[in-house]
Amino acid sequence: MEQKIKKILQEVATGSLKVEEAIQQLQKESLTNLEFARIDHDRAVRCGTPEVVFGPGKTPEAICEIMQIILEKHGYALATRLSPEAAAMLQAEWPDCDYNEPARTVLLGTPPISHDDSQAVWVIAAGTSDLPVAEEACVSVSYAGYPVERLYDVGVAGIHRVLQHQDRLATAGAIIVVAGMEGALPSVVGGLVSAPIIAVPTSIGYGASFGGIAALLGMLNSCASGVTVVNIDNGFGAGAAASRILSRQQNFKKKE
Amino acid sequence: MEQKIKKILQEVATGSLKVEEAIQQLQKESLTNLEFARIDHDRAVRCGTPEVVFGPGKTPEAICEIMQIILEKHGYALATRLSPEAAAMLQAEWPDCDYNEPARTVLLGTPPISHDDSQAVWVIAAGTSDLPVAEEACVSVSYAGYPVERLYDVGVAGIHRVLQHQDRLATAGAIIVVAGMEGALPSVVGGLVSAPIIAVPTSIGYGASFGGIAALLGMLNSCASGVTVVNIDNGFGAGAAASRILSRQQNFKKKE
Amino acid sequence: MEQKIKKILQEVATGSLKVEEAIQQLQKESLTNLEFARIDHDRAVRCGTPEVVFGPGKTPEAICEIMQIILEKHGYALATRLSPEAAAMLQAEWPDCDYNEPARTVLLGTPPISHDDSQAVWVIAAGTSDLPVAEEACVSVSYAGYPVERLYDVGVAGIHRVLQHQDRLATAGAIIVVAGMEGALPSVVGGLVSAPIIAVPTSIGYGASFGGIAALLGMLNSCASGVTVVNIDNGFGAGAAASRILSRQQNFKKKE
Amino acid sequence: MEQKIKKILQEVATGSLKVEEAIQQLQKESLTNLEFARIDHDRAVRCGTPEVVFGPGKTPEAICEIMQIILEKHGYALATRLSPEAAAMLQAEWPDCDYNEPARTVLLGTPPISHDDSQAVWVIAAGTSDLPVAEEACVSVSYAGYPVERLYDVGVAGIHRVLQHQDRLATAGAIIVVAGMEGALPSVVGGLVSAPIIAVPTSIGYGASFGGIAALLGMLNSCASGVTVVNIDNGFGAGAAASRILSRQQNFKKKE
Amino acid sequence: MEQKIKKILQEVATGSLKVEEAIQQLQKESLTNLEFARIDHDRAVRCGTPEVVFGPGKTPEAICEIMQIILEKHGYALATRLSPEAAAMLQAEWPDCDYNEPARTVLLGTPPISHDDSQAVWVIAAGTSDLPVAEEACVSVSYAGYPVERLYDVGVAGIHRVLQHQDRLATAGAIIVVAGMEGALPSVVGGLVSAPIIAVPTSIGYGASFGGIAALLGMLNSCASGVTVVNIDNGFGAGAAASRILSRQQNFKKKE
Amino acid sequence: MEQKIKKILQEVATGSLKVEEAIQQLQKESLTNLEFARIDHDRAVRCGTPEVVFGPGKTPEAICEIMQIILEKHGYALATRLSPEAAAMLQAEWPDCDYNEPARTVLLGTPPISHDDSQAVWVIAAGTSDLPVAEEACVSVSYAGYPVERLYDVGVAGIHRVLQHQDRLATAGAIIVVAGMEGALPSVVGGLVSAPIIAVPTSIGYGASFGGIAALLGMLNSCASGVTVVNIDNGFGAGAAASRILSRQQNFKKKE
Amino acid sequence: MEQKIKKILQEVATGSLKVEEAIQQLQKESLTNLEFARIDHDRAVRCGTPEVVFGPGKTPEAICEIMQIILEKHGYALATRLSPEAAAMLQAEWPDCDYNEPARTVLLGTPPISHDDSQAVWVIAAGTSDLPVAEEACVSVSYAGYPVERLYDVGVAGIHRVLQHQDRLATAGAIIVVAGMEGALPSVVGGLVSAPIIAVPTSIGYGASFGGIAALLGMLNSCASGVTVVNIDNGFGAGAAASRILSRQQNFKKKE
Amino acid sequence: MEQKIKKILQEVATGSLKVEEAIQQLQKESLTNLEFARIDHDRAVRCGTPEVVFGPGKTPEAICEIMQIILEKHGYALATRLSPEAAAMLQAEWPDCDYNEPARTVLLGTPPISHDDSQAVWVIAAGTSDLPVAEEACVSVSYAGYPVERLYDVGVAGIHRVLQHQDRLATAGAIIVVAGMEGALPSVVGGLVSAPIIAVPTSIGYGASFGGIAALLGMLNSCASGVTVVNIDNGFGAGAAASRILSRQQNFKKKE
Repeated sequence: MEQKIKKILQEVATGSLKVEEAIQQLQKESLTNLEFARIDHDRAVRCGTPEVVFGPGKTPEAICEIMQIILEKHGYALATRLSPEAAAMLQAEWPDCDYNEPARTVLLGTPPISHDDSQAVWVIAAGTSDLPVAEEACVSVSYAGYPVERLYDVGVAGIHRVLQHQDRLATAGAIIVVAGMEGALPSVVGGLVSAPIIAVPTSIGYGASFGGIAALLGMLNSCASGVTVVNIDNGFGAGAAASRILSRQQNFKKKE
Repeated sequence: MEQKIKKILQEVATGSLKVEEAIQQLQKESLTNLEFARIDHDRAVRCGTPEVVFGPGKTPEAICEIMQIILEKHGYALATRLSPEAAAMLQAEWPDCDYNEPARTVLLGTPPISHDDSQAVWVIAAGTSDLPVAEEACVSVSYAGYPVERLYDVGVAGIHRVLQHQDRLATAGAIIVVAGMEGALPSVVGGLVSAPIIAVPTSIGYGASFGGIAALLGMLNSCASGVTVVNIDNGFGAGAAASRILSRQQNFKKKE
Repeated sequence: MEQKIKKILQEVATGSLKVEEAIQQLQKESLTNLEFARIDHDRAVRCGTPEVVFGPGKTPEAICEIMQIILEKHGYALATRLSPEAAAMLQAEWPDCDYNEPARTVLLGTPPISHDDSQAVWVIAAGTSDLPVAEEACVSVSYAGYPVERLYDVGVAGIHRVLQHQDRLATAGAIIVVAGMEGALPSVVGGLVSAPIIAVPTSIGYGASFGGIAALLGMLNSCASGVTVVNIDNGFGAGAAASRILSRQQNFKKKE
Repeated sequence: MEQKIKKILQEVATGSLKVEEAIQQLQKESLTNLEFARIDHDRAVRCGTPEVVFGPGKTPEAICEIMQIILEKHGYALATRLSPEAAAMLQAEWPDCDYNEPARTVLLGTPPISHDDSQAVWVIAAGTSDLPVAEEACVSVSYAGYPVERLYDVGVAGIHRVLQHQDRLATAGAIIVVAGMEGALPSVVGGLVSAPIIAVPTSIGYGASFGGIAALLGMLNSCASGVTVVNIDNGFGAGAAASRILSRQQNFKKKE
Repeated sequence: MEQKIKKILQEVATGSLKVEEAIQQLQKESLTNLEFARIDHDRAVRCGTPEVVFGPGKTPEAICEIMQIILEKHGYALATRLSPEAAAMLQAEWPDCDYNEPARTVLLGTPPISHDDSQAVWVIAAGTSDLPVAEEACVSVSYAGYPVERLYDVGVAGIHRVLQHQDRLATAGAIIVVAGMEGALPSVVGGLVSAPIIAVPTSIGYGASFGGIAALLGMLNSCASGVTVVNIDNGFGAGAAASRILSRQQNFKKKE
Repeated sequence: MEQKIKKILQEVATGSLKVEEAIQQLQKESLTNLEFARIDHDRAVRCGTPEVVFGPGKTPEAICEIMQIILEKHGYALATRLSPEAAAMLQAEWPDCDYNEPARTVLLGTPPISHDDSQAVWVIAAGTSDLPVAEEACVSVSYAGYPVERLYDVGVAGIHRVLQHQDRLATAGAIIVVAGMEGALPSVVGGLVSAPIIAVPTSIGYGASFGGIAALLGMLNSCASGVTVVNIDNGFGAGAAASRILSRQQNFKKKE
Repeated sequence: MEQKIKKILQEVATGSLKVEEAIQQLQKESLTNLEFARIDHDRAVRCGTPEVVFGPGKTPEAICEIMQIILEKHGYALATRLSPEAAAMLQAEWPDCDYNEPARTVLLGTPPISHDDSQAVWVIAAGTSDLPVAEEACVSVSYAGYPVERLYDVGVAGIHRVLQHQDRLATAGAIIVVAGMEGALPSVVGGLVSAPIIAVPTSIGYGASFGGIAALLGMLNSCASGVTVVNIDNGFGAGAAASRILSRQQNFKKKE
Repeated sequence: MEQKIKKILQEVATGSLKVEEAIQQLQKESLTNLEFARIDHDRAVRCGTPEVVFGPGKTPEAICEIMQIILEKHGYALATRLSPEAAAMLQAEWPDCDYNEPARTVLLGTPPISHDDSQAVWVIAAGTSDLPVAEEACVSVSYAGYPVERLYDVGVAGIHRVLQHQDRLATAGAIIVVAGMEGALPSVVGGLVSAPIIAVPTSIGYGASFGGIAALLGMLNSCASGVTVVNIDNGFGAGAAASRILSRQQNFKKKE
């Protein structure tokens, strides 16, 4: 955008463009250029994560096409919430892609990854049924270039197992806690360590869990202060939130 | 009731009452007597706890009058959810009554009490704000004749304190767990011991706690199996549930 | 765990281990051992019921594998909420297993069972549609070793039938009342006897029953005091709650 | 209205009014007259009950004024949901009015009343707290000219008392059942008799009664078929519904 | 029951039965007999309508079996909410049965029917999509022996059509108004006539109709006083409510 | 803003400003100027209505101060949702202001007003209790310069009265329909005329009206197509929506 | 209708009809004629849009039949919410029909269309998943005869793109903004221009979007005043609302 | 704790304590000491923020007492959600305290504060009514030792003002966005920068904002990925979440 504005001003300076015409051109360009700037830089520059293809409502063909474009531009690409059909077509097209079946994601290429352990994001899941959501969070964090540590099947009943990792959890870059049912796990973890905690309610449960509302309310009302919450089953969003947090740490060094 | 039926039958046997008239009298009496039987025995005989006066919607005068009747019949009486005015009038009438201000209850006389520690009911409260509900539960349990142990201010953050009492909790007759906010404490306690657990959600909290709904849903969805739940803020009901449980234990011996 | 601590202390006593090193070893071991202790004793020792395999989200193969492990350790094993496929595979593997089709459970082996009638758990169901939830409760109680009495199809319209059994209900160890629609049955039963009552709302009903919410709210607001509630359709949880209650009774004698 | 139309047509017949002008006048009048007809006949003729003054949102002065107009037209008048101020002003104006304090109603004059017992409306209330709503229903029924029978404080626990009146209930013209908490009473009554039953949920209760929603849902889901429901606390509406039912009975004879 | 009591009393009178034994026999018999009385008379005697078979949760075979029993006892029988499979089996078994496809009901035999027009029940439906619920109401009314008048597809936009029938509606025995979406039709009809009105909300609609909640709330809050409401989509319940109302009218004469 | 950009460009043209410096100045100015432009023109230019002072959360003093500023800039000013204290202070400050007590608004000065009847906005209210919301809508429309016609107290029962004005309603610029309870009035009006209709649900009602939710849902599900809805009790918003609609009409001629 | 009234009056004037008979005939005709008028003119005359066939709950055959009738009467016809089967049958019957697959609509014939740009309706959609609802709105607007401008995939993140069209949006006849998830787009657009804005929440989203409730609430609470809302996913309703607005503009000239 | 363990081990080493006795002592001490450790270090050590006194449910006297203890231990102390009475008593006790009236907080002493701008937390509020919640967040962040930047009154309509600060926002340590009504602001900010964003819904709004639910749902469904949410009105929790994030940044250097 600056190039175009510079050109206009230079033409004004050389007299080849009248002031009135320059005003008109500037008004038009400012928006158009902003618009183009947005497309080029968008997520990779401004938000830290390259664009991700959200599967639902897109045909397998459309997903493949968009993935191809992102892959060419960034060298790697991610699609989430894939139907089995879409996943199959992506695997057929890119046989060496990384298909995470429970997470329903496909990753093409290899994102640059940090090797700084203080930037590790821990993903803790209360039950085995919460695994798909937890895995989506893991994939999302990896895509943004941060190391992931998994700690699964540690519901409130298995609190000793969380305690075993208390020291390492205390130095984590961020902690994502995935839980359904009553959603109590983030409160317990939040009481143990001072790391940033992102709670993800899942729709796991039955009866009065109401598709995750019980867990969502439980997490919003956590007695451990400073616990934040994302939408029900939104593993990807939790990973994105963790990436926002990690992007603040100055000693961030990604390695190709 | 049996006395009246006996009298009718004896009159039939002696011929002073005709069969047809006896049928009519029996039909009338059976219900009337059942009705009176209900009033006499009702709670004290059938449900283990003498009737309790529920304060709201009654004038202080009416409460005093009913308390007087129960006191005469049973030797002790309890009123709950008292307005300050009603409590004041009861205290004026019976200066040596037992007024529990946070629980908003007044107890007249002394209920017979068990001294068997295996029948102790533990009342655990997550936060200091849950105290009024917890105290109402305590009063309710005492009124039914069982010993009470209090363990307050032990939210999920203070889990070590609960652990300290794990041995004694394991032998409790029943455990009432009172909690607001996300209501996670019953899950933690339920994972530690095999005693019967009655969870009481409180309306403590703000924002999306929605007057106790968050805690209620959390408790209904507890991952610790066998946790049961009563209505929001229903300390009295939790005490009554504990009394039902204790009444099953054969070695129950109350002492005056 | 005690063995390892003993060994450390003996090494300290004999001087083969320095005090400082012993401190470090103790800190590490305490958690690891607690953890292992948890796995060994967990439910069978601490909570009265051996672990139960919850079917949803597990493959039939995984269910078979876990059942095999529990069967070897405890001599009997239970799986709940089984898909037809999972049930079929379990039946193929253990042809003499006990498959309760409406309850969707499979039991391997024979749990030790109490023959004390005062420990019988009555399971009362309002309508025939509530039967699957009621049966799940029955299986859960049997698994924990207590005798079960069934009383089905006795909605509020059939109140006389409940009255017929009033005497035996009055001596029950615990009563589980399963009802959908308006969920009024626990109030009626709770008004008749002083036994512990666990109400289970079911998702049976239509229109404004909202998948069991009407019954759940009805039960939470029961005018019969001391009625406790578990989650919608949670027959297993009700059985577990009854088992917690029965485990308190001192004269408990299981027979192999 | 017919008078005005007649007059127009007579003018047309006599030639004193042109056809075109008559068309215009007819169009205007038809609505205007319908409108006035509506005011004159409205409730007293079409709906069986003279207009009732709904207190909220009206000043005491305005209420007095409207009552005066209705009193003059019909010989009696009713105001509901009165604030203490409005009730006081009405009592000052008409010292011999009938002020029902719990129902918050004032009745001026005496409505004609049926003396046919088969047209009696029974108003049954579960608890003493439901009395204001029940009384509003009673006043509403009396205002429409039907006899009222009250049966209060007969919750599900007091079912024997309802049974005592089963014979007379069976011949009632209509039964209004008022209940809060879990709202189970209409199911019990509906299972006993074939009379029309109008259930009124009240906002009595606490915790998860949610201002009457629990009772409302319980009544909508009643297992006794043919129970109908009106809005929460809507005693007046229940009385109006009963009046609609009674107005169908051919042998209806009101006596001044 | 009276016969047995009489026999006991006669034995007492003749001295062949002791008073003490008589008391025991009376207590036992009273419940047993009440119980049997209930089964014999139940709905046909006490509630005006013979038992109806509710299809969901029953196998086609079970439905056929129960229908056979009722048919033998009463001469006619009705099943509702039938799956296509159950309907097919009933049609195969009784080829001349009356299968109402939209209502999903099958009627065997012919119920006695009143020919008194003042007992006609009008069933008004707002839209064509509400037809299945309306038809279920019609079948339910016919089964109870009352004549039915249908008035379909007269939403609030077609109010003139309702006006056309105002005279006959005004003399109807009862009016059932079936509507989805905003559920405004009962308010309009309720403003026109003084007949009893039973509103049935349907789950028809989309978006924020929330499966009939919008219509349900609209009807509960109707500005036309005396409108009563049944559960969402509960055509059968509306018919049963209308039957309760009609059963009150003394000049009721059914004809075979 | 254009003036500043022109000046910069002229300096570039004359060489008194370097291209690089000009780029920096342009970037700064564009936002600052946009910002200032926003304040000057905002509502009066872009949205058709001068800024309105929303009372809640502001001190009476602050309200007076802001009103003074707007009055100076535009010649007239409006404040809404005023507390009695704020209204009193405004009246003290500007004794000849226009205080609409039910609407809780104060208007200073006189907005220019259109005298084109085809631009009249009709405000229809179902009940007298809906008047405050309706009046707020009227004030809001007048403030934007359009004529207002009021039609109050015409609930669904008074439909003939609406019919009387059908012709004039048919030519209205826009119609605002205010209703509480079941919110059926917009459906009726929407079925009569093709004018734009803005429905305003009010929190008037009781029981299951849930503070206006019943009316809101009723209006969203209106069977009359093309009815739009604003927030509960949002009379001001409805007026603003009507103003947006009127501002489209080319023959708009305001007169001072 | 006037013709018939005129005839009656003329007969009265000539004496061939008696006044009493004329009164009776007038009463009958007024309703019948109103009724017939309604059928003839209904939507095309009174509401600006010919009747539209709503697909759900109708068989493909029935849809074809109704379309045929409307086509004959008006020269064009529209069906919405078509199942694939219904769409296929319509295409088979009218091979040159206009089938909009995402919108699930079929248009027969060509509606007259305005060529006045100031009457253009802009349809803005936040995401690609909102497209079906947006397209339904477009079809609905075209059917009513107004030009449509589409602006898709401009979520809050793409706000610059909306800004690019600010000038043309400012002169739009009406703007329909379709958005799911948090539904923030109407607030942004409403802050930019003074045109009438109709917000359509879509059921797009997951977790706590609750099928469009989040978007619906967001739009009802928009901080941009004067934004109106229609039901979730109700693209057709939004188009109808826009048509109501455009029908007010006097310079409306449709061209065949 | 280590001191006590060391002492036990030394006694074992010297033979003054038997191994068996040592095991028992170790088991007891481990919990007791953990407990004391918890009290000493709790928040200041483990969670980064010293304990904060939550005002509601505590008497002014109790608040003063607890503040005194914390002040002595840490040198500074904070109380939140203070009633005017509690605030007055604290001000009387510590006249130079820092009372933030809108935030309802009192700060005693001065917390150590970071002077690293990259650790600044921006607190953005949509409207003036959101100020109390925003100020509570500011106080909470300051208490934890991080610099605060305020940006108030920048609703979606004032988006240009946010754009002005885009550069500095992009380098913020964390951003707290406080908004009521439709809660759209976090989506806009989240689309502009990659910094961590914590959204706080407020209960500001009316009608269908339902006490903040609309804003809460809007934020949970934000189309800007990686936005996290805390409870309604929970400014303190948002500050605590920001502090958790900042505590991760290695170059954290607080200055006295």
